[in-house]
Formats: sequence, structure tokens, C-alpha cells
Amino acid sequence: MEPVRADQIKKVLILGAGTMGQQIGFLCAAKGFETAIYDLSPPLLDTAKKRLEKLAGRFVSRHRLTGEEAAAAMARVTLTPDSEQAAANADFISESVTESVEIKCRVFETFHPLCPARAIFTTNTSSLIPSMLTHAVGRPDRFAAFHFHNTLTSDIVDIMPHPGTTPETAETIRAFALRLGQVPIVFKKENHGYAFNALLMNLCDTALFLAAGGVAAIEDIDRSWMGIMHMKVGPFGIMDSIGLDTVLKVNEVWANQLNDPRAITNVEFLKKYVNEGKLGEKTGEGFYRYPDPAFRHKNFINQA
Amino acid sequence: MEPVRADQIKKVLILGAGTMGQQIGFLCAAKGFETAIYDLSPPLLDTAKKRLEKLAGRFVSRHRLTGEEAAAAMARVTLTPDSEQAAANADFISESVTESVEIKCRVFETFHPLCPARAIFTTNTSSLIPSMLTHAVGRPDRFAAFHFHNTLTSDIVDIMPHPGTTPETAETIRAFALRLGQVPIVFKKENHGYAFNALLMNLCDTALFLAAGGVAAIEDIDRSWMGIMHMKVGPFGIMDSIGLDTVLKVNEVWANQLNDPRAITNVEFLKKYVNEGKLGEKTGEGFYRYPDPAFRHKNFINQA
Repeated sequence: MEPVRADQIKKVLILGAGTMGQQIGFLCAAKGFETAIYDLSPPLLDTAKKRLEKLAGRFVSRHRLTGEEAAAAMARVTLTPDSEQAAANADFISESVTESVEIKCRVFETFHPLCPARAIFTTNTSSLIPSMLTHAVGRPDRFAAFHFHNTLTSDIVDIMPHPGTTPETAETIRAFALRLGQVPIVFKKENHGYAFNALLMNLCDTALFLAAGGVAAIEDIDRSWMGIMHMKVGPFGIMDSIGLDTVLKVNEVWANQLNDPRAITNVEFLKKYVNEGKLGEKTGEGFYRYPDPAFRHKNFINQA
Repeated sequence: MEPVRADQIKKVLILGAGTMGQQIGFLCAAKGFETAIYDLSPPLLDTAKKRLEKLAGRFVSRHRLTGEEAAAAMARVTLTPDSEQAAANADFISESVTESVEIKCRVFETFHPLCPARAIFTTNTSSLIPSMLTHAVGRPDRFAAFHFHNTLTSDIVDIMPHPGTTPETAETIRAFALRLGQVPIVFKKENHGYAFNALLMNLCDTALFLAAGGVAAIEDIDRSWMGIMHMKVGPFGIMDSIGLDTVLKVNEVWANQLNDPRAITNVEFLKKYVNEGKLGEKTGEGFYRYPDPAFRHKNFINQA
């Protein structure tokens, strides 16, 4: 059976009702697609529903949708723990479950036989490459990474095919991204890290290494970046918003897989914060204290 | 003899009349200091004088100085190839000659005996560390790196003491930076690369490595960064403004000194541009074509 074309896509299936599943699902619904969001249990889906309503409210308060449009979008969303119902007639699958090869593969193995043969499968993984998952997808030619950032603040999406993805599939995903109002960045080959993520993580790791080595103070490193780049936040402020546990996890992968001495140093440095429960903005303290971190003060740059 | 205190500084001596010598010299003059700018030959100084006048005009057009203030600043500047005249009564020395240990040392060896014992010596080096130069300064306790970025667009200055710099000297330089209206970032120890430079070069090198590896197109890498960071320029646009010959030089140092495989790849990638004379904005072409590069077009981000 021929794979679906972008203009034929009517129903999107989101696998995983976490933060990214909510964001991608709401975006699809807002753009007029029937959207099923699948997760394992009703309590998880109840939480997701509340967060979706909050997200809808943010699109309205930021004037990206009217109240009516947001309500219509919510009406297009079905949250369900029933895999058969979720998969029925799905044209396009976007997976955002836990960042684990094993779990993602199990989910793909479940949904491949339930979904129509024409459907395109995608993963929103941020740290794996699609090749690691192809054996579980059942239809590797109709599979690629399709990765979103924060849908509230950015329209950039990454499309990373693996060597077995057909050009038609990559083009369908690209065209679907345009239907979602996104800016698709199509990668020419697989890489550990999308362009933005690679740039940002290297920026953050350089900042960590300077601080870990006692070269300069955290605030001074941010101040240098903010003052010269004319940005409102520096690398440590950015890491606080990502979550220091997540930054630690990425550095641990690099320390273990690549034996990168810089990552090894940074892991030790980050562990001190994470072990004290200082995970950043979400716990009220990381490199800065929230809700009123020093770097947002008016005279932060001049207080050196 | 006691070293000069920041509030006692009256005359600044700038060694080297190139771009940074002009910028630092003009800033000192604009802040009311008597400023001598020394270089080897009258033709070099004539060129510098014309550029200083242009720089003064930019401070006026950007409303950072009135026409009268700019004229008064220019009246405080003496450009001279006479080392004794330049050094007489100098309280504070800022060196911006060619980025070579040998040349910088020769200049310091010349000026140490000519300058008052109380004077503080500083280097504006961007790639060396002050320890490499201390043996030539004659007064290592009164010496540190004092590094400016673009004085027209940023107020951040880096102060990097070496192990023999006295705390008083570091403090004097810091206080002098404040008299110049700058934001001093004081480093706790020597490091190859100031905070901003280290952050920026790692960002650029990550971008280069993605492009050199054929992972993503240059424009797509910039687009990702600009679209998510909400910046007007991405790493390739930034490198075009720095000059690809300079970026190549830094990568060559890293490739040779650190044997960094990423730098080795990036050197090969950059050489293709540099060998064709594509050095960036200054030659009309680098990663983009000037004066109207694609990344400044209104819909650049959405043209993916």
C-alpha cells in the first residue's frame, strides 16, 4: 500500500502524553487535525488533559489563537489508554514516550500492527538517532525523526531521516510540517544531536567547563555572553530552564560514550547541584534562585 | 615605587595603532584621559588617525557622544612613532600589537624602561595568556591581560591576571575599567580564551563540524539557532563578521596544540573558503554574500 501523502493526512496519533506529547498534540489539533493522544493509564491522561487546557489558554493569552479556536482545537483531541481506538485510521504517528530505546521500541512494536499500513511513523526523540529504533517500527521506509522544540516559543522542527527512510517519506514529513505552520530543518544524515541541540549543548558545556575549572564565576560567564550578544539570558540561565538533571544526563552520555574529559569534569560539577535537589527553575534553585533570578534583574550586567 | 592607583591615572599609552588600539585609545580619550597611541611608522599612524575620526563619527551618529565631546576626545589623542614621547608620564599601558608572543615581548622590552615605574602594563591579547609575556614586561607584578571586545557595541572587558599579578594591580585595572564605563569580568585564573571567546568559538566550531560532516546545510544550522534563540544572526553569519581567516587561525592552533579531531576537520572545511579568498563580510563573500546576505532577509527563517 502506498504511504500517505501530506495532503491526505487527517488523523494524527500522539504516543505519550507527557510535555512534548501535549505540545505536539495540541499543535496538530490547533491546525485542524483530528488528534488522538495515547498513554498507558487514565490518571496520566487526566493530568495531560488539564495541562492541555492550560496550554490552550497560553496560546490564547499570547494571541496565537482566539478563545473559539482554542476550544475547537481541544474538541479535536481524544485522550485514550485504548491502543486500538487510538490507532484506528491514524495517518501520522508522533512518538514522545520516555527517552529509552527499549521503551520506544516496545511502543512501536505495539502500534505498528494496529496502525494502517499507509501511516508514517515518527519519533520526537531528542538524544537518540532513528536508526536505533528502525528494527521495531515494522515499516522503516516510512519512519524518521520529527523533532519539536518548544511549540509555544519556536516554529523550528527537525526532520532526521535514517539511511532506510525513503525520500518520499522525508518529503511527506516536511510537507506535513509546513501544514503545521512549522519551519522544517531537514538533515542530510543522521547525527547525535539536531543542529540547535548540538549548538546549545556545546555552548552550555563550555560554560560549565569554565566554571568547573574555577576560571570565572557563573554570573560573570553569563554576563559576558549577555553583554556582548545582547541576550536576556546566558548559558547558566538557559541550563536552569532546561533542568540540571537533564543537562547532567546528556553530559553523562558524553562522558561514558565518548570518554570526553570535558564531560567527565562537567558531570562532577553538575552532580553537586543535582544531589542537593537544585535542578533549576522547576525546583526553585539551580545556578540561580527563582522566581526572581539575579540575571533577570535590570542591572545584572553592570553589577560585575 | 608604589604602583599607580586607578584614581591617579591621567595618561594612557596605547601600543599598536590597529583596529583594537584605535578603539581602546578612542574610548580612553572619550572618557577624559590623555591618550598616546604609538606605532612604528607615520603612514600607519596616518591611517589610524583617519579611522579614529571615522570611529568618533560613529560614536556621534549612535548618540553616544555629542559632536563637541567627540572633538574634545580627538584633541586628547596624540599619535606618535616616537617611543620616548609616547612613554613619558604614562600611567597605564594597553598593548594591542600583532598577536605574536615574539612581537609583543619585543614591544614590552622596549617600553618597560621608558615608562614610569609606577605604571601598570596590560595586554589586549585575545588568544595568548599573560604568563607567556611576563618575562618581557620587566614588572610582572604590575601586569595582566585587559581585553576589550567591540567598544562600539559592547561594554564588557576581561581582566585576566597571571599568577604573579598582585591583587592590587588586578583591582587597579578593575577600577580603571569602571572609570572607562566598562563592565569588568575578572578571571580567577588564567585560561586559553576569555569566557565570551570560549563560548563563541565553541558555538562556531560545533556549527562548522555539523556542516563539514554534511549533517545539515549552513543556512539550516543558522536558521535553527536564529529561530529558537530569536537572534538576528547565527554562527555562520557571526563567523563571516569575524573573518574566516581569523576563525581558521584559531582552529589551526587547536588542531595543532590540542590535536582536537573536530578542529582538524574544521580546518580543512575552512581552508576551502579561505583559499578562494572568501574571508567573510570584509571580502564580500564568505558563507554568505555581502552586502545583502540571505540571513538578513526578512523571511530567511521561513524559507527552509
